[in-house]
Amino acid sequence: MIGGVNHLGIAVRDLEKSMALFQQIFRVEKFHRETVADQKVDIASFKAGEVLIELTAPTDADSPIAKFIEKRGEGIHHVAFTTEGINDELQHLAASGVQLINPTAQKGAHDMMIAFLHPKSTNGVLMELCELPKKA
Amino acid sequence: MIGGVNHLGIAVRDLEKSMALFQQIFRVEKFHRETVADQKVDIASFKAGEVLIELTAPTDADSPIAKFIEKRGEGIHHVAFTTEGINDELQHLAASGVQLINPTAQKGAHDMMIAFLHPKSTNGVLMELCELPKKA
Repeated sequence: MIGGVNHLGIAVRDLEKSMALFQQIFRVEKFHRETVADQKVDIASFKAGEVLIELTAPTDADSPIAKFIEKRGEGIHHVAFTTEGINDELQHLAASGVQLINPTAQKGAHDMMIAFLHPKSTNGVLMELCELPKKA
Repeated sequence: MIGGVNHLGIAVRDLEKSMALFQQIFRVEKFHRETVADQKVDIASFKAGEVLIELTAPTDADSPIAKFIEKRGEGIHHVAFTTEGINDELQHLAASGVQLINPTAQKGAHDMMIAFLHPKSTNGVLMELCELPKKA
């Protein structure tokens, strides 16, 4: 079951500059910092209400985020929705004709399991499904 | 003060087709429908958790959404943040160097007062501030 918006990924060139900008607009007190080696990105995130805003900068010219910026410029990259039973949901979507980028969930930031749907199937919106880690 | 994410605007060509698609993915039970004559758009919205997802289709080739789609294709158009004291906030942002599209708030959907910040100032992200109507 797909639920609420978990986070919004924003592609930025220069993480320090963008942190200063968002700090100013949103009066951010503290950013969460994380490097996701698989995606070759550095992330600085903060909460706007219940939604995490993830500023995402490439660490390598080969990063998917670097390619996105090259093609479309900086801006909103994807929207992620909290999902219960992510792999069942992916199967359900595939069966109903939605094209998946990740047919099964993979490890992402914040110890979540994540998968992307192909924007060709979803009105040009890059959507991520993410399942929060089970609490011990 | 800028708060949480209020809604996410998604530019679509064909509202009926997009409603069917999002209905399927999100199991939407009921869409809120609205026409915003000023913006020359038809909107169908639903809630994903606390965030409203606004599917927005142009009603005229002259609509800002039609121009967006022509230039960038369908996809996420803007993100809106609930704001207390929107006009004070706009003044504060302008004074700190953020370029505004609307220097003062205007009437938007859901009887909100809204204003857009210029994406040149905000890492390519088209941001809307919106203030909910005061309850009687």
